Amino acid sequence: MLESTLTHLVCTGCQRTVSADEWHGTCPDCGHVLAARYDLERARWTFRPAELAARPWTLWRYAELLPVCDPRFRLTLGEGGTPLLPAPRLARTLGLRRLWLKDESRNPTGSFKSRGLAVAVSRAIELGARAVALPSAGNAAAALSAYAARAGIPAFVFLPMDTPPSIVRECLAYGARVYRVRGLITDCGRLVRRFAAERGWADLSTLREPYRAEGKKTMGFELVEQLGWRLPDVIVYPTGGGTGIVGMEKAFAELAALGLLAGSRARFVIVQPEGCAPLVRAFHEGATRARPWEGAQTIAPGLRVPATIGDELVLAAVRASGGTAVAVSDQELLEGTRILATDEGVLVSPEAGATVAAVRQLRANGWLAPDAEVVLFLTGSGLKHPELLPADEQCPVLEPDADSLPDPPVG
Amino acid sequence: MLESTLTHLVCTGCQRTVSADEWHGTCPDCGHVLAARYDLERARWTFRPAELAARPWTLWRYAELLPVCDPRFRLTLGEGGTPLLPAPRLARTLGLRRLWLKDESRNPTGSFKSRGLAVAVSRAIELGARAVALPSAGNAAAALSAYAARAGIPAFVFLPMDTPPSIVRECLAYGARVYRVRGLITDCGRLVRRFAAERGWADLSTLREPYRAEGKKTMGFELVEQLGWRLPDVIVYPTGGGTGIVGMEKAFAELAALGLLAGSRARFVIVQPEGCAPLVRAFHEGATRARPWEGAQTIAPGLRVPATIGDELVLAAVRASGGTAVAVSDQELLEGTRILATDEGVLVSPEAGATVAAVRQLRANGWLAPDAEVVLFLTGSGLKHPELLPADEQCPVLEPDADSLPDPPVG
Ligand SMILES: [Zn+2]
Ligand SMILES: [Zn+2]
Repeated sequence: MLESTLTHLVCTGCQRTVSADEWHGTCPDCGHVLAARYDLERARWTFRPAELAARPWTLWRYAELLPVCDPRFRLTLGEGGTPLLPAPRLARTLGLRRLWLKDESRNPTGSFKSRGLAVAVSRAIELGARAVALPSAGNAAAALSAYAARAGIPAFVFLPMDTPPSIVRECLAYGARVYRVRGLITDCGRLVRRFAAERGWADLSTLREPYRAEGKKTMGFELVEQLGWRLPDVIVYPTGGGTGIVGMEKAFAELAALGLLAGSRARFVIVQPEGCAPLVRAFHEGATRARPWEGAQTIAPGLRVPATIGDELVLAAVRASGGTAVAVSDQELLEGTRILATDEGVLVSPEAGATVAAVRQLRANGWLAPDAEVVLFLTGSGLKHPELLPADEQCPVLEPDADSLPDPPVG
Repeated sequence: MLESTLTHLVCTGCQRTVSADEWHGTCPDCGHVLAARYDLERARWTFRPAELAARPWTLWRYAELLPVCDPRFRLTLGEGGTPLLPAPRLARTLGLRRLWLKDESRNPTGSFKSRGLAVAVSRAIELGARAVALPSAGNAAAALSAYAARAGIPAFVFLPMDTPPSIVRECLAYGARVYRVRGLITDCGRLVRRFAAERGWADLSTLREPYRAEGKKTMGFELVEQLGWRLPDVIVYPTGGGTGIVGMEKAFAELAALGLLAGSRARFVIVQPEGCAPLVRAFHEGATRARPWEGAQTIAPGLRVPATIGDELVLAAVRASGGTAVAVSDQELLEGTRILATDEGVLVSPEAGATVAAVRQLRANGWLAPDAEVVLFLTGSGLKHPELLPADEQCPVLEPDADSLPDPPVG
């Protein structure tokens, strides 16, 4: 069995070292985000391209650099191992020569959130948790509910009232305890912290514990492995809480430290909707932290995140990479979603559509050169947003003995 | 690049040989189903466990035994490579010791139909098709629409009026030309045959061309590879048209001919709903063919198939394997769907839930022994059936400053 080489946790604020053998949320001293550290000298012996090539395609193939020590605690629904698809037709449309789609909608529960929660729920249980909880705008709640069901422990999820009903119902299907809150996701978060302390739940709020980011990190490992142990020029990522960026930056740093990734870095492009773009605003103001966004409003629930504890980390990662930050309108992101389906056969969530809109902007203003190799992260499935699909009233109706075909409008 | 070893087609009725170099639907002499044949002596050189282990996890890893010759025509959205999940909690509930879930919902477009259509659309285009068409109760239409979009050719789909609106809308999202027909899927099929002939579309109706079954075959290859090159005792399969059974039987026969599968066979259990069970009725009547089912009615659209051209092949395969056939009520299959989500964290379609209901029956009547190793094929995603998820009205609503938690009902 593959062994984890987890050694300890380090605070990303005050650099204090914390034991990994007991449950910690944020830094006990300064309240900043904690990050897991590994014994890379030990990992180096088995974490090698040739050995990896023969392992099953779930994120647990990277077990040396994941924080679950006893393999019996590694919950799996087959998370990770998502396709990296060439997108030649969309590339032409966007004026690019090399474009890839990392299709995260193919994870369990239809979104990238399953990576972080597979790892975090596993680790929480390994450290003794009997129940798990989080606030969520949608997809994280579904993923938590599924992994808690898989583990046989209760999940408590707190969702804002405007969460799409389909996601609420998905959580209920997994048997989760679902609370709807008259407020924002930040209000949900406060309730989770309060009742988690009172009832002993493991609080798995984004970046308020160190292990979800470890799961997200595997997006970076996979991308590099699928490209043949190298990076693309640009990674375009729809950004809510920002764990994906934080996780991928960590992945690339660990691979570099292992000698598996030489040379240049990938530039991160973070994308947010115009109606809720705190990180984009902070980036262009030159700020190191992001002010909370007032009156957040967007059709993309996963991007309706007015404030994140990870703001500093995300902004630093984007700047260090030579990347940028882009805001797109709801109309643009829906058009991005539409074209991904019609041009490449990939049906994704509105968050994912935002990446296409961002590339359009960056091609138009010259930030992206036509020969840049670009990867779009498609974070969720369009099947989770039935309300956004084209209306079916437009289809012609035929009698069984019809002898001519009307030309239907193209959807 | 991996080479196909396709040699020719053979009629499963009159055994006539037909060239594979041009498009054929059914046998030009007797109208029976055509099957692809390969040069197994040539395939043997590279189709080996050690070589396969290092190939990417899509169904194209089995290219030697797939019918697409030029790799440029192999369309991919990352189909196949679905997880085989152990299900210990559900096993205990059902009184089994070894139970696996083959989670086909994780294919592109959320169902096993993507396997057949990835291969069939690829092969049709390789042989010159400029447009593709089929009749469908739902999932096949979505898969066809996605692969046609990926290939950049038009798809024409014909759906009965009672197809779930979510699936109609999914097809429209991919840009397919969608017709709704006031009739059954058999009426849709007649219209497709008529207009395909008139307009030169490739007609990809189930088993009316030889290549969809080749794609389905990869479910069998994968299962055997994931189990370490052996078969389970029992395979439980929700059966509409029956290509899955026909394809898997062919897969096992090819693997045996290659010397990769010794000894015993897997017993096939086919499951149909009580409201449309033509194959189950025929099986228990001892018939070699199935009479069409009158007044087909079930909540599982993929199983609302009153007649199939593959009836003889499916019935023969089940009998040769020592298997059986089970009918379950709609209520039982919905309960199966519920328990898969709450006990194992897998949200599947009603068709897939039928497998759990079948195991219950077969354990109760003693056909299944507790020590049988059983694989359930979960053919589609629950996300494609939002109308069947639990209602969200049952969730307690909290104010942001709530200081106590009501106990919510468990979904
Ligand atoms: Zn600190
Ligand atoms: Zn014939």
